[in-house]
Amino acid sequence: MKSDLQISQETDLKPIVEIADKVNLGYEDLELYGNYKAKINFSTIEELKAKPDGKLILVTSINPTPAGEGKSTVTVGLGDALNQINKQAAIALREPSLGPVMGIKGGAAGGGYAQVLPMEDINLHFTGDMHAITSANNALSAFLDNHIHQGNELKIDARRVIWKRVVDLNDRELRQVIVGLGGPIQGVPREDGFDITVASEIMAILCLATDLDDLKARLARIVIGYTFDREPVTAGDLKVEGALALLLKDALKPNLVQTIYGTPAFIHGGPFANIAHGCNSILATKTALKLADYVVTEAGFGADLGAEKFLDIKVPNLKKAPDAIVIVATIRALKMHGGRQKSELLEEDLSALKAGFVNLKRHIENMRSYNIPVIVAINEFVTDTKAEFALLEELCENQGVLAKRVSVWEQGALGGVDLAKAVVELIAEQAADYQPLYQSTATISEKAETIVKKIYGGQGVQFSKKAQKQIEEFEKNGWSGLPICMAKTQYSFSDDPTLLGAPTDFTITIREFVPKLGAGFLVALTGDVMTMPGLPKKPAALNMDVTNQGEVIGLF
Amino acid sequence: MKSDLQISQETDLKPIVEIADKVNLGYEDLELYGNYKAKINFSTIEELKAKPDGKLILVTSINPTPAGEGKSTVTVGLGDALNQINKQAAIALREPSLGPVMGIKGGAAGGGYAQVLPMEDINLHFTGDMHAITSANNALSAFLDNHIHQGNELKIDARRVIWKRVVDLNDRELRQVIVGLGGPIQGVPREDGFDITVASEIMAILCLATDLDDLKARLARIVIGYTFDREPVTAGDLKVEGALALLLKDALKPNLVQTIYGTPAFIHGGPFANIAHGCNSILATKTALKLADYVVTEAGFGADLGAEKFLDIKVPNLKKAPDAIVIVATIRALKMHGGRQKSELLEEDLSALKAGFVNLKRHIENMRSYNIPVIVAINEFVTDTKAEFALLEELCENQGVLAKRVSVWEQGALGGVDLAKAVVELIAEQAADYQPLYQSTATISEKAETIVKKIYGGQGVQFSKKAQKQIEEFEKNGWSGLPICMAKTQYSFSDDPTLLGAPTDFTITIREFVPKLGAGFLVALTGDVMTMPGLPKKPAALNMDVTNQGEVIGLF
Repeated sequence: MKSDLQISQETDLKPIVEIADKVNLGYEDLELYGNYKAKINFSTIEELKAKPDGKLILVTSINPTPAGEGKSTVTVGLGDALNQINKQAAIALREPSLGPVMGIKGGAAGGGYAQVLPMEDINLHFTGDMHAITSANNALSAFLDNHIHQGNELKIDARRVIWKRVVDLNDRELRQVIVGLGGPIQGVPREDGFDITVASEIMAILCLATDLDDLKARLARIVIGYTFDREPVTAGDLKVEGALALLLKDALKPNLVQTIYGTPAFIHGGPFANIAHGCNSILATKTALKLADYVVTEAGFGADLGAEKFLDIKVPNLKKAPDAIVIVATIRALKMHGGRQKSELLEEDLSALKAGFVNLKRHIENMRSYNIPVIVAINEFVTDTKAEFALLEELCENQGVLAKRVSVWEQGALGGVDLAKAVVELIAEQAADYQPLYQSTATISEKAETIVKKIYGGQGVQFSKKAQKQIEEFEKNGWSGLPICMAKTQYSFSDDPTLLGAPTDFTITIREFVPKLGAGFLVALTGDVMTMPGLPKKPAALNMDVTNQGEVIGLF
Repeated sequence: MKSDLQISQETDLKPIVEIADKVNLGYEDLELYGNYKAKINFSTIEELKAKPDGKLILVTSINPTPAGEGKSTVTVGLGDALNQINKQAAIALREPSLGPVMGIKGGAAGGGYAQVLPMEDINLHFTGDMHAITSANNALSAFLDNHIHQGNELKIDARRVIWKRVVDLNDRELRQVIVGLGGPIQGVPREDGFDITVASEIMAILCLATDLDDLKARLARIVIGYTFDREPVTAGDLKVEGALALLLKDALKPNLVQTIYGTPAFIHGGPFANIAHGCNSILATKTALKLADYVVTEAGFGADLGAEKFLDIKVPNLKKAPDAIVIVATIRALKMHGGRQKSELLEEDLSALKAGFVNLKRHIENMRSYNIPVIVAINEFVTDTKAEFALLEELCENQGVLAKRVSVWEQGALGGVDLAKAVVELIAEQAADYQPLYQSTATISEKAETIVKKIYGGQGVQFSKKAQKQIEEFEKNGWSGLPICMAKTQYSFSDDPTLLGAPTDFTITIREFVPKLGAGFLVALTGDVMTMPGLPKKPAALNMDVTNQGEVIGLF
């Protein structure tokens, strides 16, 4: 079997100007990064504003299991398949972080014959967006610590700094550190920590900003800590939002690349799907919508996390809701939700499939509650049986939802044609009429309750003492109009990763909130949230190499 | 008076393909980064190997003073002036670090009408080289700490790790830190510290490597620490040199930009001039030499540090010595070497100038000792008087050296024509016959003694107990054939920054060596060496901004 890298290297890439031409962009609209990558100029984005939006298709999934569900692959393959049936389509995806690439085998550029290319570049430095975010994040830390060191005019309490540094690596050693050691000329000692770059609020900001002015205004609103009097201190108080925006001016421009089938792909931004909203940038989605008749995009993790945040956080900023939602499921994964282990998935098991369907069923109901047409994509594996397909199709039909098989990983565009046709038909026949889950005027606890009861299917929310105190504080600060960004395990509807299927008898404990005023949401932490992954004993990096001619080896 | 940024923004840039055409490079030789920046492909560099080298002109200077000497500006202006007199010339320069750009006003892209462009890009993320180096450096740290955490098969003594992390920022808070806190699943607690990226050994390696294979071999040789038995541990022992080289594969390609006058400028790599060798990359210089008849390049700090390292560390790797050396001096700075304060430089002072000439004189003698023709460039200031010029020209003439006035900052290419003509004539008339300062077979202490006595004019070297012990250890490890890279103050020939002019009655104390096996030299630390600058009370960043259209504000 060919590796993703092999398939990628065997593909004849088209010059990116040819790809751009498919969506009527000319050379003057692009800033080239080599022959196969480009950024879209701000002036072009400005000109496009007058054009109507195309149709937006959101790809989401059941709760992920170790069996895999292939959401990115289906997203890419659906875009290719739409072009295959002569619809003008583009895709919008997140860009991968270097940390997991070096750590564990697996990127975020699709797989098999449903990949975005050049995968080597996309999975390494790409157009430098991650590095710009790392620089801006850490520059803010340096300005903050320098302010404290140089007299601390703003009276920042070094014990109450909440702004952390970042690196775009999996580096557990940096999770908890002490900085500023070495005496008075080396800074002020305090506790600090490093997150991975994609967990930076600046990543979330970049993905929600609509232009450079909006970016700058959001940067200014970032809460970096508190004064000795417990008043919030912002990046704007340090007067550095201009410098930070300057560092991010190119990173804010959406990137254009191509799939194996030459479908235009806007790959831009990649915020964490737990402590952030987990979707590619507003500017990438918006640009794609102005240029293509159909735009396929995805949201991180399962529909309880990724799609909920897409719909309640991204949509109000994007000012455009999806016209259809595709929920990706695999028969293997549903059997795990039905109680089987990963090692037991090779054989047909209709009863486990039926039992596990409850997970998919709840996601279907949830997505429909937003008044958006829903369709299921069954991502095929070789071990799936005819009887299993038939059962799953029937179970979906009983819910009034169409289920279509896709095999884009193995067959590329052709493997997604059935789904593509069905999606086009669905959009033509059923108009979406987006209804938000909650109103911004609801209180913080009402919003959290709504998410837990209506989306997760739980009994309610318990707030820790700290969280209760924070709610009062936030209300006093005027922050209660913001949406909630839940940081919860992706493996279960509940906050217990071992509760698969569709649990109901649980409550969610919110132990702490983190205000993200720049991004414009309040993160609610439930359970342990990992914001800096570690490396495995044998990191993927050990297999990587490059020849003297520059050819990449061992990158997946 | 116009700012550098204003002059830069008023210049009509030519597409980089037109600049490339001036040195017979075609579109297929380039990887474009937008319209005005490109990297040179490895296949082109390989093809160029068969071509003869052009003439190499090294620009160096007297010991820098707060009055400024304008070495980069003269380098750029001389390249422009050579083209002005119809010689085919290119320049090779270091790329600036983001830290000082955000911290203090001043970049490394020349100034006035002798600048390399686009200065905004060059001074911000440019083509991502610095970020790639930061990533590779910190990936090595993560792999190292992960190795210790996951069982420590190599028995690395966490107290004897010498590999530090880096950020490309001025951030004093990170100079001394403790990492790995938080209990057994968060890594192994140990002392660590962050240098600025340009101080990373990987920067020095990138600048000395001749191709990707050489880069990889050098990365494998990096000493990252010692075992409990005090045996050196290398990056190769961790088996990560392939992954690190992969991260650096594009960063190793030289960057091509242009001056205000359209002179091709290879801006690539920028190692510290104290704990590293302070010159742009071998690949940039070599590529320029293959493409142009005259290549103007510079070395960091004064000739005692920068030029000495260029001649004793870079030249053996480059396999090409300069055909001429230009020593830049200003009348203002020489008056400071003659005992005047910065506030006292406005008025004519022939006796201070004469007294300060001893600094220039020693640099002239030093450079001549390498058997390379020398010329002096007097970088004009408006306060200089005719009598001062006449005196300085006479003093130089007494040494048998020509001195030429340059005013490229104010007048651009025309302001360097006299110097350009004189340099061309000098090269035509006097053949260089490079003699190294010392042989590689000399002992470590002999090499250090030679540098201090012959170049600095001191009495000799004192080694601390630690340094003495290290010399024995290094000899045992077989490292004594390597050149010495002195880390010394740039302000004086001695290790006391206040001793201006040409002191003689001093010894240099080497307190410690740092083995840089990847770069291929042993750093000798004298005095305090700053490898992580701090920010001033009001960082330059406070004046920076960007408009909604992406126009840069306040960057110099």
